[in-house]
Amino acid sequence: ISRRCLSFFLSLFNYQTEKYVVTKNSKIGILYRLYQLAVLVYIIGWVFVLNKGYQETEEAIQSSVFTKLKGVALTNSSETGLHIWGEEDYVIPPNGEQVFFVVTNYIETPNQRLGFCPESNKVPDGRCLKDSDCEKGESVIAGHGIKTGVCIKKNGTCEIRAWCPVENSLKPQKPLLAAAENFTVYIKNYIRFPKFDFSKSNVPETNEATYLKNCTYDSKRDPYCPIFRLGQLVKWAGNDFRKMATSGGTVGILIEWECDLDKDSSYCKPQYSFTSLSANKEHSVASGYNFRYAKYFKDPSGQTFRTLYKVYGIRFDIIVNGQAGQFGIIPTIIALGSGLALLGAGAFVCDMILLYMTNAGSFYRERKFEIINQKDLQKEKDSKRTRPGISKYNHCNMLHWN
Amino acid sequence: ISRRCLSFFLSLFNYQTEKYVVTKNSKIGILYRLYQLAVLVYIIGWVFVLNKGYQETEEAIQSSVFTKLKGVALTNSSETGLHIWGEEDYVIPPNGEQVFFVVTNYIETPNQRLGFCPESNKVPDGRCLKDSDCEKGESVIAGHGIKTGVCIKKNGTCEIRAWCPVENSLKPQKPLLAAAENFTVYIKNYIRFPKFDFSKSNVPETNEATYLKNCTYDSKRDPYCPIFRLGQLVKWAGNDFRKMATSGGTVGILIEWECDLDKDSSYCKPQYSFTSLSANKEHSVASGYNFRYAKYFKDPSGQTFRTLYKVYGIRFDIIVNGQAGQFGIIPTIIALGSGLALLGAGAFVCDMILLYMTNAGSFYRERKFEIINQKDLQKEKDSKRTRPGISKYNHCNMLHWN
Amino acid sequence: ISRRCLSFFLSLFNYQTEKYVVTKNSKIGILYRLYQLAVLVYIIGWVFVLNKGYQETEEAIQSSVFTKLKGVALTNSSETGLHIWGEEDYVIPPNGEQVFFVVTNYIETPNQRLGFCPESNKVPDGRCLKDSDCEKGESVIAGHGIKTGVCIKKNGTCEIRAWCPVENSLKPQKPLLAAAENFTVYIKNYIRFPKFDFSKSNVPETNEATYLKNCTYDSKRDPYCPIFRLGQLVKWAGNDFRKMATSGGTVGILIEWECDLDKDSSYCKPQYSFTSLSANKEHSVASGYNFRYAKYFKDPSGQTFRTLYKVYGIRFDIIVNGQAGQFGIIPTIIALGSGLALLGAGAFVCDMILLYMTNAGSFYRERKFEIINQKDLQKEKDSKRTRPGISKYNHCNMLHWN
Repeated sequence: ISRRCLSFFLSLFNYQTEKYVVTKNSKIGILYRLYQLAVLVYIIGWVFVLNKGYQETEEAIQSSVFTKLKGVALTNSSETGLHIWGEEDYVIPPNGEQVFFVVTNYIETPNQRLGFCPESNKVPDGRCLKDSDCEKGESVIAGHGIKTGVCIKKNGTCEIRAWCPVENSLKPQKPLLAAAENFTVYIKNYIRFPKFDFSKSNVPETNEATYLKNCTYDSKRDPYCPIFRLGQLVKWAGNDFRKMATSGGTVGILIEWECDLDKDSSYCKPQYSFTSLSANKEHSVASGYNFRYAKYFKDPSGQTFRTLYKVYGIRFDIIVNGQAGQFGIIPTIIALGSGLALLGAGAFVCDMILLYMTNAGSFYRERKFEIINQKDLQKEKDSKRTRPGISKYNHCNMLHWN
Repeated sequence: ISRRCLSFFLSLFNYQTEKYVVTKNSKIGILYRLYQLAVLVYIIGWVFVLNKGYQETEEAIQSSVFTKLKGVALTNSSETGLHIWGEEDYVIPPNGEQVFFVVTNYIETPNQRLGFCPESNKVPDGRCLKDSDCEKGESVIAGHGIKTGVCIKKNGTCEIRAWCPVENSLKPQKPLLAAAENFTVYIKNYIRFPKFDFSKSNVPETNEATYLKNCTYDSKRDPYCPIFRLGQLVKWAGNDFRKMATSGGTVGILIEWECDLDKDSSYCKPQYSFTSLSANKEHSVASGYNFRYAKYFKDPSGQTFRTLYKVYGIRFDIIVNGQAGQFGIIPTIIALGSGLALLGAGAFVCDMILLYMTNAGSFYRERKFEIINQKDLQKEKDSKRTRPGISKYNHCNMLHWN
Repeated sequence: ISRRCLSFFLSLFNYQTEKYVVTKNSKIGILYRLYQLAVLVYIIGWVFVLNKGYQETEEAIQSSVFTKLKGVALTNSSETGLHIWGEEDYVIPPNGEQVFFVVTNYIETPNQRLGFCPESNKVPDGRCLKDSDCEKGESVIAGHGIKTGVCIKKNGTCEIRAWCPVENSLKPQKPLLAAAENFTVYIKNYIRFPKFDFSKSNVPETNEATYLKNCTYDSKRDPYCPIFRLGQLVKWAGNDFRKMATSGGTVGILIEWECDLDKDSSYCKPQYSFTSLSANKEHSVASGYNFRYAKYFKDPSGQTFRTLYKVYGIRFDIIVNGQAGQFGIIPTIIALGSGLALLGAGAFVCDMILLYMTNAGSFYRERKFEIINQKDLQKEKDSKRTRPGISKYNHCNMLHWN
């Protein structure tokens, strides 16, 4: 290896440091120091302490929810007499899902059979004056059946082929299952953060089953008990239970997991909150919550008949979301690096001020910018060959890196 | 405090600025300016204007969906006679969930009773030539019951203990509920972005219920009406309704929320799109969508019998996703800082070119790199004690910071 | 345009480069080079190669899941005799949802009618010694009905108005549907990454349906077959099937999609894993999984009676999550820029060491910091007007930018 290249390689390990011009201009000096301070405060205080900018976060939470209701209600409606409602009846679907509906009010239309009968006069499209208003074979919009082409004058509605008699009675003005207020729901939520392979359940790790048997959730006294009273859920969501129970509604049960995995996993606990998901506009179609289902029977002759239920009730949506954070090198360096880069910007601004907004600007410029005048450059070029020492790097130029 | 330290502290407020060597080499000058320009354009144009890089975004959307179908159909199949289908029958499950199935075609097998009968010859594992082909007590793979060990020659299938007669009729070649094309579905979607505590519903804030009563979604004319015709949904998803209705399929209804929370919340509106989620391979098991359910009855003698339904239909998956963005300091500074940092990289490259790829390189190097020669350094060291003025910082060294 | 401004604009294209002081102090030189190396390794090795820091990622995955079970079981319980269970019976709900429950054990209470009977003595709140223990009209907590105010001495429980007789038999000690171990489930999962508009299905793109007809998932031999044996699912989740089948439990089927969209889409394949979502604490209420449902019948006289089922079984939660990454300019530049910014930090530290922790520190400082002494500055100011050449920029000051 040539002597020159050797000396070049050695030169790689010379330490180079920028040359600075120090001005006694303390106004700008202070300005710059303040700026440095601000950046420092931002990085340490805001990014790292407040926003945990050193953590990589995971928002894609995996969640599995199981719900179980308890309680029994006795209803006594004029048409249909006494009825006992247990979980198996008032929870729809009954299999403990994340979104479940609790019947609080209903209209029962027993013993419907396929046949011909007048459409309910509550259905606009069903009303008629003459037969021609009821086009044969056409189904009644938002109605119960298919028009037969006959207009039944005394009702003022079309005759239809449908399950007869059609549902016609009115919604009870007070909830038949008012007792639902005291039903309890047990919510089991199991979550997992795949990125960190961290999983946890909302059921406290308590061994005595008695705790779960007796506790009820209360944001103050017992914020980790996973058993809730429906009445309170509705109240906490800002609704009046009786009102909602009458025409139905939707309540959201939010379970939030804010997990700082740099701390002990026992600090990672669920936060429950409750919100009403149904529009509060009384006049809108959107308000209320109801749907229909039917139970089918066969009489001894094998004919099918059914009981139609229009159920009003409260739907509970359990919405789980969460975020886990854990120290990560990359976010740390990104936060740090981008902060430092700002220092440069500050220096640039201060330079501008110093060089172009102070009287002595031009003087400072002279000192800061050392202008190579072309004569020297020329002279240099001519004399090069005679002074090889200078160009000692030349053979290694392409290799050299600063 | 010592005079020296004092003067040191004052020195903290001197402003220091890098010293530059200015070369008249305008090629590189222009190159560098262009680079600066490029970076500037990137930061302002690309990051901030196009990609809203100044926003912190939230992708974990909380969503609650409620669906309600309307429409009634009359079916008239040879075996089972007339039947009226209402929401309570053709929507499964009936309770207005986010994922719902609409029956469009079905095979009914009425009056099944527990007993012994030949397996359907459509089941490969059920076929047999001699009794030994039907191992007693073994269940028929993908079949309907448990083999009794007898082979019923005339059918060429094993005798099984099952609900008899086994389902055997063929899928109707055209959908029995073709009328489903005109059913309408009302979709109510309530979303929330927990990070920004922003929530909204897809139902326009209109007071006259009449609007919702009469409108139908249309991407052009009425893109915010939450009521859809099933036939159109299937068409928009790129399928032929009659084909899909016959053997079943899955349609995805995507609701996308792109919310710029720096703007007014009224700009945050849902975007509906429709896609087919079922494989288009006719020959694969994956194609089509069907399942079975049974209605159970008891005859006067208390014996159980049932009607088995194999239903084909269209499953609608409502998939909600969205993203909300709002101005945030950290992302802004990260975008800014990392951009600025690049300027440094550019300067470095230009230096390389200037110093090692121009003839005058070595000359520029001389000027850029002021080499301290060791003799001076030595002399300096010797003479130190005699010139205390220089080392006036020494007592505060550890404190000093640049 | 004035001659001065012109010359100023030209000056914009002079290339300016920092002036460096080169010290032969190779200790710090090496230190700095090592630091540069470290940063380089971090950026290239860690950020780009290992963590694909150049990709923008999408975690909000859209997913649609369809499940279909196959298999048939014969149960033979003393009370209720023989029964054949098909998919339509043991899968709840039957319509192929993402979360489904498979009945593996059950208690049947046939022929319940509304009436009066003693509460089960398994319910604590139902026990009594005298009538006053049974407050009339109050419902039994976690019980089956409404107290009538009578205490039935011989049972030691309150008389209640309920569906009689109340469920009382014990849970079978071994699963009645042990055959469920051999049931198979076909899972179809369709995913989409909205940001990249990329979608895929977990069903291999194979044309011969025979493949799907015959394959079974096996992490080793056949990791992409979407058909699973329930028994194995439970085993892989780390549970004993018979135990879980007896009292019920929950199994999570995780489908993970890790898609590098810079590669060909065929590399984007699902990863199945299985975990138990039910608490392993035997004594806790949380353990096990069961719920009730009822089938309603009417006798010839029109009276309603029902069969109540308390079903134990295994709930399967299919949890889909995934992440897609694709090259993006912004993340690349952020990763790059913030890395480069760190180089500055290193230089700063090395400076500190050089200037304040070496004997020659003060000497280096002298060379690095060129202190402008105020006399010159003063002289300069006085003489300014006499040397217009210097202040040639003055007319364009505000325009000038470095």
